Amino acid sequence: MSLKVEDHGRVRKLTLNRPEQLNAFNNEQYAAVRDALKQTEEEEPGIAVAVLTGEGRAFSAGQDLAEMQRMIDSGSEGYQFPSFLAQLTSFKKPLIAAVNGVGVGIGMTLLSHCDLVLISSTAKLRTPFSQLGLAPEAGSSGLFPMRMGWQNAAYTLLSGKWMSAEEVHQAGYVWKVCPPEELMAQAMTVAEEIAANPISSLIATKELMLAGGRLTLAQESHAREIEVYKDLVGAPANREAIAAFLENRKPDFSKIPGA
Amino acid sequence: MSLKVEDHGRVRKLTLNRPEQLNAFNNEQYAAVRDALKQTEEEEPGIAVAVLTGEGRAFSAGQDLAEMQRMIDSGSEGYQFPSFLAQLTSFKKPLIAAVNGVGVGIGMTLLSHCDLVLISSTAKLRTPFSQLGLAPEAGSSGLFPMRMGWQNAAYTLLSGKWMSAEEVHQAGYVWKVCPPEELMAQAMTVAEEIAANPISSLIATKELMLAGGRLTLAQESHAREIEVYKDLVGAPANREAIAAFLENRKPDFSKIPGA
Amino acid sequence: MSLKVEDHGRVRKLTLNRPEQLNAFNNEQYAAVRDALKQTEEEEPGIAVAVLTGEGRAFSAGQDLAEMQRMIDSGSEGYQFPSFLAQLTSFKKPLIAAVNGVGVGIGMTLLSHCDLVLISSTAKLRTPFSQLGLAPEAGSSGLFPMRMGWQNAAYTLLSGKWMSAEEVHQAGYVWKVCPPEELMAQAMTVAEEIAANPISSLIATKELMLAGGRLTLAQESHAREIEVYKDLVGAPANREAIAAFLENRKPDFSKIPGA
Repeated sequence: MSLKVEDHGRVRKLTLNRPEQLNAFNNEQYAAVRDALKQTEEEEPGIAVAVLTGEGRAFSAGQDLAEMQRMIDSGSEGYQFPSFLAQLTSFKKPLIAAVNGVGVGIGMTLLSHCDLVLISSTAKLRTPFSQLGLAPEAGSSGLFPMRMGWQNAAYTLLSGKWMSAEEVHQAGYVWKVCPPEELMAQAMTVAEEIAANPISSLIATKELMLAGGRLTLAQESHAREIEVYKDLVGAPANREAIAAFLENRKPDFSKIPGA
Repeated sequence: MSLKVEDHGRVRKLTLNRPEQLNAFNNEQYAAVRDALKQTEEEEPGIAVAVLTGEGRAFSAGQDLAEMQRMIDSGSEGYQFPSFLAQLTSFKKPLIAAVNGVGVGIGMTLLSHCDLVLISSTAKLRTPFSQLGLAPEAGSSGLFPMRMGWQNAAYTLLSGKWMSAEEVHQAGYVWKVCPPEELMAQAMTVAEEIAANPISSLIATKELMLAGGRLTLAQESHAREIEVYKDLVGAPANREAIAAFLENRKPDFSKIPGA
Repeated sequence: MSLKVEDHGRVRKLTLNRPEQLNAFNNEQYAAVRDALKQTEEEEPGIAVAVLTGEGRAFSAGQDLAEMQRMIDSGSEGYQFPSFLAQLTSFKKPLIAAVNGVGVGIGMTLLSHCDLVLISSTAKLRTPFSQLGLAPEAGSSGLFPMRMGWQNAAYTLLSGKWMSAEEVHQAGYVWKVCPPEELMAQAMTVAEEIAANPISSLIATKELMLAGGRLTLAQESHAREIEVYKDLVGAPANREAIAAFLENRKPDFSKIPGA
């Protein structure tokens, strides 16, 4: 099971559960999170708040690159990412992330779709899109500037460098840094504070806030990103980057005109 | 008189003046602030800047709940809040708030419509909307994310918990924390710095800034909130919350399906 | 030559080079920066990142006021500012500013169009628009709230006061404060970190981010500002302010109705 689901009163805890793959998203995990969010929203009138975390030492290492290659080869047939993202983007109940370890790629960008992000002081985050010859995804081209200001967003997306828990907190991308051993307890405490209020009001609040700009920004940014990916995926810079990654060497873009 | 008006050179000071009701807004006070802002904008070519503060130990305890109940019962006939808010939202001259004590509900949300907010270090703010079975008002569903970032806005609006002066400052919701005894002097100093410039330029600057997004965001957010309130006001969660408040007990939402 | 251009690997360094005029923008300098950015974007497939700085002790003292007067007198014939701004606003490659000294007017507002801003700890910034009887320019009426939050933007634009390097950093307007002697080295280090990635990805990232709101906000804000300037330039408050400036005295707006 790529996702564990547990209820604590009015709080549902969702735990990414592929610890040996550092919770990297394969198709099954995308589908599992999507379905769990959909069920929480539509079929659980007694659940007020969802908390998302990761099993083991990582939060999520991001897109499984081997699977990404298969998707590219097969023309994205059956790829569960778009429907996962659509569900995440419009999820109507409060969603809290407890980032227990590294978050890479979608493991960092999905946090822009959460309402509160708590992070372990030992965790770090990174979006290696430009290093892979790619571009921002999951709406991050629009949501990162909204969530951490233009300059932090630009540095993160353009450089692809690691950001420490303290740096993403300073940037405003996460709400609170916690000692690792207190992360889940603090996340659950906040979740319960919120869950004590009427669910009808929590849904109304989240929906009004989303309508204030975040939902449209996320959807439109994602739509633009999809178009850009059509040009970048499989282009020379992307091929060189993936080859270098699989061969465990530094990519050499200098031989590629314009890359 | 629910509002005191005093001029200091080119600065007009407006003081909410129902100290025994902690400056809670009744219909008369909404109308008084609305009319004072309108007059400052339209009939006072020598007034450059307005400063809003509260008499006594509170800034404003928010909507007067007894009056709110009367408004609900009477179908909002004669309710002065919408025209108050419309005037506040589009006020053309710089508006500075000096938050001398607690701000609750509209006593917190109106600050999103001010251009600079100074707060006493002993003050605290809170929006108990979800706790009352309601939802954000006064455009706060859109303006809070703009003014304090998504996560602080979500925590404040969803939880309804108190935020200290230091917390709202860290969140970016207020510009400056002052010792209580220096609050008014510091607010007047900033007001006078700004008021020294040509009023035509101050109005042009404020109007250009409003046109850059805040005005539309406030108006559209408020319009959406109005629709949501139609469903929430008087619904079971709201009735239980108000009953519990009046009976001075903890509300019990668990008996209400979906609440 | 009002602009020095040097390449360091994949990084192009552009240095405003009118040190005796504190790099104030005259028509020639506007045109030089515009042309250099355009060439970097269109004709230099091997340049990934541009860095903008100033020669001597200032970054830029802003619009050359004597030239501004000539432009007003001649009906803006041949004025290079609009095409400079249009190029800056839509520049497709990452643009990093290294603010080596004072930035005034456009010397501060152009930073909103940069992706990362590093500043010397001894520098300071200021927009004296309202003090000159004018209003925000270069899209700053929309971009300042986006880059430093509403309240810092309002204070800066309305008051026209100096802000120290530390203050603009606290406000989020600059990304990093550096000791003066380390400014260029740190700016080049960041530029090189980014420039190590495929240029195709850097351009895609910047364009997606711009499409997420900044480009339209900048263009629409500038268009509104242009309209407002038609009323303010040459009006009594502006004439008094410029006369006082040239006569090195404090302006007296009290004799001008509404100013």
